[in-house]
Amino acid sequence: MEYHYEHEMKARDYECDAQGVVNNANYLHYFEVSRHEFLEAKRVNFRRLREQGIDMMVARVDVRYKYPLQGGDRFVIRLRLQREGARLVVQHDLHRLPGEQLYTRCVAEIIALKDGRLTDGKIFDAIFAAELA
Amino acid sequence: MEYHYEHEMKARDYECDAQGVVNNANYLHYFEVSRHEFLEAKRVNFRRLREQGIDMMVARVDVRYKYPLQGGDRFVIRLRLQREGARLVVQHDLHRLPGEQLYTRCVAEIIALKDGRLTDGKIFDAIFAAELA
Amino acid sequence: MEYHYEHEMKARDYECDAQGVVNNANYLHYFEVSRHEFLEAKRVNFRRLREQGIDMMVARVDVRYKYPLQGGDRFVIRLRLQREGARLVVQHDLHRLPGEQLYTRCVAEIIALKDGRLTDGKIFDAIFAAELA
Amino acid sequence: MEYHYEHEMKARDYECDAQGVVNNANYLHYFEVSRHEFLEAKRVNFRRLREQGIDMMVARVDVRYKYPLQGGDRFVIRLRLQREGARLVVQHDLHRLPGEQLYTRCVAEIIALKDGRLTDGKIFDAIFAAELA
Repeated sequence: MEYHYEHEMKARDYECDAQGVVNNANYLHYFEVSRHEFLEAKRVNFRRLREQGIDMMVARVDVRYKYPLQGGDRFVIRLRLQREGARLVVQHDLHRLPGEQLYTRCVAEIIALKDGRLTDGKIFDAIFAAELA
Repeated sequence: MEYHYEHEMKARDYECDAQGVVNNANYLHYFEVSRHEFLEAKRVNFRRLREQGIDMMVARVDVRYKYPLQGGDRFVIRLRLQREGARLVVQHDLHRLPGEQLYTRCVAEIIALKDGRLTDGKIFDAIFAAELA
Repeated sequence: MEYHYEHEMKARDYECDAQGVVNNANYLHYFEVSRHEFLEAKRVNFRRLREQGIDMMVARVDVRYKYPLQGGDRFVIRLRLQREGARLVVQHDLHRLPGEQLYTRCVAEIIALKDGRLTDGKIFDAIFAAELA
Repeated sequence: MEYHYEHEMKARDYECDAQGVVNNANYLHYFEVSRHEFLEAKRVNFRRLREQGIDMMVARVDVRYKYPLQGGDRFVIRLRLQREGARLVVQHDLHRLPGEQLYTRCVAEIIALKDGRLTDGKIFDAIFAAELA
């Protein structure tokens, strides 16, 4: 399997809950960070898009938690994009470092709104021309 | 459709991100709160379970975001439980108040660990005897 | 000591960190919630203020943590306001329930911006006329 | 002024609230991260300390917010330590990059507990021998 982008991170102690492992919600934060970093690598700024009336919103996520991360763990999130109609489907594979074991997998479906209305998603093709070609 | 439990909440301003709506990750916090409140209504304490070596962990979530909540919005999360092998499958329907429109739906699969090892999930039958019968 | 407002809350399990108690940062969230609820009780909407170009920002906080809250703990935050020049000085006393023991005390200094520029803070007198008289 | 440690970070979009800037509570997360990184650089693991019954807790924070960070902003947190009785007093200066402007300053007082009881803080001298000498 070929990925389009990867971003390395480190689990923070405050992201863990009383169970001593990263709380399930914080993975969605990690995945969002990896997508925004990918946008930045494409010289697209999430905040500047907003000023043009364009909002990218998560329409669906499907997350499978295989092993729990602990505070201090290093990991890498690897992304693979696909276009499905109006939606950008992003697979996020989270591998723990070192060792590269798959800890979490998330498939997120992203939509683009213009002034609050759903678009046909052509903006995704424009931004990710190389990946979606 | 019949629900087994419901819990009312209010979106907090700090749970919104720069897009002005509740960030996608925070819904997982809301759903967790509703499950823990359900446990409490059953006189089961999430923290005391931990002290007995029992951990309930989220193994999978599938969330569909239909409409975005804004800061100050009131909503109710309605839960329906089902047992599937070792897993407790929890449907969470988030309806905005007033009006009762379905804003978000989440199906979460929960597993129970005893001293770090996966159990057969019979503890779910013990806790939710009435609902899973 | 007389308070101007109080708001009751319950600590959520995800707000605890691996130390098993509420993480120090989350208290600032609690205090913000209590202030926004006070504004709402005055029929002032934090989000609508923003649309008029008015932002209330925290300029300083001084928090003393005496006892740590655990997940599930109920508590009440009691507020007392004072005007000091351009700043609204808000004392927040967090008492655990039942028992009313003082767990945390925060003094926050709030400023009001209009279109990004510091105001003289007269808007505070308008909103909290009864309390600041 | 001489600092004892520094740690570079980047503000994440989800850490901003509806005001479009980093929420005031998240700075406490940043400061905690910088302290835990400093511990790690000393080969002291926050989680392993816990297993030995030692907890470091925040007893007080005093934060002055001068300018607000936006999502995507890079910054460095610079730490300076001082021992005052049982407490470790940590000054955190947050400078935005590039430009090095001081955005936020926090003075935090940290205590060490052993099996839940306050210690005299000699553990701080042991860990930060070079800095506190």
